[in-house]
Amino acid sequence: MAMATSPHALLLKNPNLTPLKNPNFNNPITTTNTNTRFNLTTKPISIKCAATSQTQTPIQAPLQTQSHQDRVFNFAAGPATLPEKVLLKAQSELYNWRGSGMSVMEMSHRGKEFLSIIQKAESDLRTLLNISDDYSVLFLQGGATTQFAAIPLNLVNPNDTVDFIVTGSWSDKAFKEAQKYSKPSTIWSGKSEKYTKIPSFHDLEQNPDAKFLHICANETIHGVEYKDYPSPKNGLLVADMSSNFCSKPVDVSKFGLIYAGAQKNVGPSGVTIVIIKKDLIGNAQEITPVMLDYKIHADNKSLYNTPPCYGIYMCGLVFEDLLDQGGLVEVEKKNKKKAEILYNAIDGSNGFYRCPVEKSVRSLMNVPFTLEKSELEAEFIKEAAKENMVQLKGHRSVGGMRASIYNAMPLAGVEKLVAFMKDFQARNA
Amino acid sequence: MAMATSPHALLLKNPNLTPLKNPNFNNPITTTNTNTRFNLTTKPISIKCAATSQTQTPIQAPLQTQSHQDRVFNFAAGPATLPEKVLLKAQSELYNWRGSGMSVMEMSHRGKEFLSIIQKAESDLRTLLNISDDYSVLFLQGGATTQFAAIPLNLVNPNDTVDFIVTGSWSDKAFKEAQKYSKPSTIWSGKSEKYTKIPSFHDLEQNPDAKFLHICANETIHGVEYKDYPSPKNGLLVADMSSNFCSKPVDVSKFGLIYAGAQKNVGPSGVTIVIIKKDLIGNAQEITPVMLDYKIHADNKSLYNTPPCYGIYMCGLVFEDLLDQGGLVEVEKKNKKKAEILYNAIDGSNGFYRCPVEKSVRSLMNVPFTLEKSELEAEFIKEAAKENMVQLKGHRSVGGMRASIYNAMPLAGVEKLVAFMKDFQARNA
Repeated sequence: MAMATSPHALLLKNPNLTPLKNPNFNNPITTTNTNTRFNLTTKPISIKCAATSQTQTPIQAPLQTQSHQDRVFNFAAGPATLPEKVLLKAQSELYNWRGSGMSVMEMSHRGKEFLSIIQKAESDLRTLLNISDDYSVLFLQGGATTQFAAIPLNLVNPNDTVDFIVTGSWSDKAFKEAQKYSKPSTIWSGKSEKYTKIPSFHDLEQNPDAKFLHICANETIHGVEYKDYPSPKNGLLVADMSSNFCSKPVDVSKFGLIYAGAQKNVGPSGVTIVIIKKDLIGNAQEITPVMLDYKIHADNKSLYNTPPCYGIYMCGLVFEDLLDQGGLVEVEKKNKKKAEILYNAIDGSNGFYRCPVEKSVRSLMNVPFTLEKSELEAEFIKEAAKENMVQLKGHRSVGGMRASIYNAMPLAGVEKLVAFMKDFQARNA
Repeated sequence: MAMATSPHALLLKNPNLTPLKNPNFNNPITTTNTNTRFNLTTKPISIKCAATSQTQTPIQAPLQTQSHQDRVFNFAAGPATLPEKVLLKAQSELYNWRGSGMSVMEMSHRGKEFLSIIQKAESDLRTLLNISDDYSVLFLQGGATTQFAAIPLNLVNPNDTVDFIVTGSWSDKAFKEAQKYSKPSTIWSGKSEKYTKIPSFHDLEQNPDAKFLHICANETIHGVEYKDYPSPKNGLLVADMSSNFCSKPVDVSKFGLIYAGAQKNVGPSGVTIVIIKKDLIGNAQEITPVMLDYKIHADNKSLYNTPPCYGIYMCGLVFEDLLDQGGLVEVEKKNKKKAEILYNAIDGSNGFYRCPVEKSVRSLMNVPFTLEKSELEAEFIKEAAKENMVQLKGHRSVGGMRASIYNAMPLAGVEKLVAFMKDFQARNA
């Protein structure tokens, strides 16, 4: 449902979302509209806690179209767009979670209410990815960047060899941080080809005594994504899945450890999810900060200290939404369709638009592209923003444009972008 | 205003909160009520994204009293109660932040909208605590527990001596983690007296070459709080202020470093604030994980990687609310009044209630107490919960009860607790 062709259509099509009488106009409106009573301000205002100043006007406003008009299509690489249904749900219970008399933000992390939230989030994630009991699921803090240190600190000794495939900026950062706690070596790098490729696995020469092989499953900046995964001859497979986590089914049993920052596909920033084979836990180096020790968090079910409770709650709402959609098989179909439309528009532009990434490994999540006439790129981004399509500027290290089309980007957003691209080309070819 | 005698009174008394016509009943209601249309469910329900199922009934419900009835007084030690005004504000703009077309949870941390949020949060915190430009203010992740490692890793070398005053569980945890990265010594411990005291500073014998003196300004579990601060003869003063941060004015210039988890007085869990003298930054040990290196975060204004954006936004709303109240001088007056009422009730109970903490160092934030008839404690907690006063159970390591009365606990909450205590005593003396 979250992929319906517009936020409005989403609500009309969703059997769960029944129309609500508009007390002012006596015509049916949707929850979106009801909720948007509280967020129709159209320009920044002082937030001197004048909490009600926005809550009156909207009731007079044409609610039917307001949400549709106000919502932009946000192509940011992360934090990124979230499912509208999830945002409305979160808004509806922000002030008082299901009669508990408090916000999720106010709950003791050891109270029964929050325990029910984190346990359901874990259980739904296990269902989505079919995670067996051989694996622990941890909800941590600090982003993937903290895991760049935690992984070698927990899995190997300082003199152990570990292998890295470097397909972009993120796998390179992971490699560099691992130098502090292990002996990493880059067994393949795409740098000379500007990170547009992924190697064929049978050509890979792993170090004979490598304890693990680290990959970045999807490079957010460069837009290269693994379509299948290497089976390391030596050691374990460890993957940073930050930017394609829960975008498609994954055979978790092939991995020793999977980690992901939440802020692309599954929630707000501030939550990092680690899925680790239980028999790898408990061997942290002595210098490991207690908060980077997987054993501490596994033994305490992610509650050794206060976790990022609200972020975990939001992830839980997203997991439920993904299950409602039919799980990751259905989600992947939608993501493939969105990506196909966009890549076809680029490839069918007779070179007006260009994607540098090798076709076989193009990301379904992050689509970098450039203009043949690069002098027009700033204008492209400016005009798109006027059309409520924002955050299309490419990463400074790559330039050009980048459209991040994560799970929560509606098909309508991609269709609108493609229509704009064709129009822009017609006017500037 | 946040300290008004009831959520309802708060709204009526607050000039910023103007009444809103109730479209159903034609009588004036308040924003609280408008907002609580979305959260009146009185028992847990499935969250299969039936986002609207709760949004209809409330409109038929007696809105006038609903918020007052639904809101509990939450005495949790953290995460803890937040200002009702702040929650309503956050709810009103969760779905669309001030016409940006997106939620704060969806914003790129490098976009102009979020930059305005984090910059204003820092600027308001600097105003509240009168923080000079000699100090960096960092918004980090991982809780105080991560700082237990980051502090020695950033400030000293592995063989350096550092001093700790251990006044409770938290300063003891900080001491133990410091053993991995320095040579800490406990120059005073209250353990033998069950952590009910704070030493007199002139008796303290610091190590002659100690690089810093670490204290915990308020022990959340044991309820002992520094009323003034030692001036270390040797080295710097470093303070964990997690549970009394922004509860009163503090002379920041006396400290080398102040750190605090947000989830007691200033926001949701998942944000850790570090205030550090700039000349202490840049000397991290080689083994320091990049995410624990203060220089990385200071050089990148807390945006080296994706910060906990929504939590920082919530802290910003709380800082504004504290400024609206007149700043920390006014906030401290309210906190002193609340604590005085509660401690007087305990001390005036002829021993029915007992607080073990030495009077001169009793915390304004966390009030532990026991019953002379300890067999009645479970009943006390149970009956209080029936009266919508929750999370009063003492920490398992101490037992008894604990009332955490942070900034956002209304005076009405403490008054209600005290009235209940007297009634309970009358019925059980």
